[in-house]
Amino acid sequence: MRVAFQGEPGAYSHEAALAHSPQEPEIVPCRTFRDVFRAVAGEGADVGIVPIENSLTGSIHEVYDLLLEFPLEIVGEVFQPIAHKLLGLPGARLEGIRDVYSHPQALWQCESFLETLGAERHAFYDTAGAARWVAEQGDPVRAAIAGPLAAELYGLEVLREDVSDCERNTTRFLALTLPGRVPPEAPGGQRWRTSLVVELRHEPGALYRALGIFAERGINLTKLESRPLRTERWRYRFYLDFEGHRGEAHVQDALARLREQAVFLRVLGAYVKGS
Amino acid sequence: MRVAFQGEPGAYSHEAALAHSPQEPEIVPCRTFRDVFRAVAGEGADVGIVPIENSLTGSIHEVYDLLLEFPLEIVGEVFQPIAHKLLGLPGARLEGIRDVYSHPQALWQCESFLETLGAERHAFYDTAGAARWVAEQGDPVRAAIAGPLAAELYGLEVLREDVSDCERNTTRFLALTLPGRVPPEAPGGQRWRTSLVVELRHEPGALYRALGIFAERGINLTKLESRPLRTERWRYRFYLDFEGHRGEAHVQDALARLREQAVFLRVLGAYVKGS
Repeated sequence: MRVAFQGEPGAYSHEAALAHSPQEPEIVPCRTFRDVFRAVAGEGADVGIVPIENSLTGSIHEVYDLLLEFPLEIVGEVFQPIAHKLLGLPGARLEGIRDVYSHPQALWQCESFLETLGAERHAFYDTAGAARWVAEQGDPVRAAIAGPLAAELYGLEVLREDVSDCERNTTRFLALTLPGRVPPEAPGGQRWRTSLVVELRHEPGALYRALGIFAERGINLTKLESRPLRTERWRYRFYLDFEGHRGEAHVQDALARLREQAVFLRVLGAYVKGS
Repeated sequence: MRVAFQGEPGAYSHEAALAHSPQEPEIVPCRTFRDVFRAVAGEGADVGIVPIENSLTGSIHEVYDLLLEFPLEIVGEVFQPIAHKLLGLPGARLEGIRDVYSHPQALWQCESFLETLGAERHAFYDTAGAARWVAEQGDPVRAAIAGPLAAELYGLEVLREDVSDCERNTTRFLALTLPGRVPPEAPGGQRWRTSLVVELRHEPGALYRALGIFAERGINLTKLESRPLRTERWRYRFYLDFEGHRGEAHVQDALARLREQAVFLRVLGAYVKGS
């Protein structure tokens, strides 16, 4: 199994890839999200792992746009805790750390800890790359902020376990493949989640009526988000997740009714809910 | 007028601050979003400018969380185009650029251009800080990716106008003050937007019924977003924006009805829509 993700080996995306494919997959690190989609669509990888939303920074519209651009489908999801750790060389002491390297977002999220530590902050392209660089430099006053997998891959020690100011920093990742590549499991009601993107006709109360289709059939929504299409005012796309699978009659029925009210509708996939 | 924003002078937040307060405000640059809220709540600034959503990266949950934590209200909004430019020293030539400095997200967004240019990329804490650093170094082979205000403030030249791969990269900023500090204008229907955060009772169809309150009164929603509260499963908060102002009877009525169905509701402010 070849699994593509954006980032360096040891990145949080790599951790999510292992959570999704525990049997030691062959990894395909990519520079950009688009490269992940290209790899999976072009058969350079069997599965792609991309972040779709984070508990602090929200939904990643760019990934939704790529989901609409490429003919891939969602076949799984992983909720990956973002657990920033301070990583140093083996034998380095916390009190001796003078310089800390990481992605600016991670440095911001660890602001309080870094102020207490009194170390200088240095921006890096990504967390795992910072860990590798610290390992290569071999200087015990340098440390990186990254995840546990980066520590393992680059032979660093965890100098402090949890250095983030933010509680509940979790990223939801999606697993993507070409349609039909992974055999569908039998649908089993609430274990499944279906994701779709819909643009409704521009009429008063259109969203209210669309949600009525789900409410009447007892289908639980687990995500609903409007995304303005800035090219044309008053046009919105909705991201919608609900519990259920297209194999179920009432879900099929709801999707057929929704399609009647939609200018555009694409089901992105149905998959067993992650935890 | 003292205006606080997160980032260095010349940052996109600074551009948004000038768009909101064109009469040469005294600027209060802050390290973090929390520092902006602290400055405004503690009277270190009259207005705070914070990003709430971006057309590529989505809503910024962290800012929503701070809106609930601090007693500030939204009094305005600015849609700020994120127009990345390549900035170099006066007299520098595009062909001579060897090293480009910026925030990793800006570097990613300019990936295609940078590949064509063949320059080496260097991560920096923020775009405006990279521009200042390039100006200080005085080396004509170095350039920064940042906005037009950074070029102006640090005396750099625009070597290439639009270097981003992304179309329509726009950030929506909010202007915040302590309640009652800015005199409310008279409500005038569709010119106004109201923002609120609501948690509905956990009952089937709760969202459908809540939207009915707005649909029945002809109130247009301009944003609706579910945000899962990961501390407790099955609990969601909704971000909701609609056209109208609390001074209007039908809006007051809708808010009263919504409050009956809510576990928690907070109106974040009513303000003239930006463009």
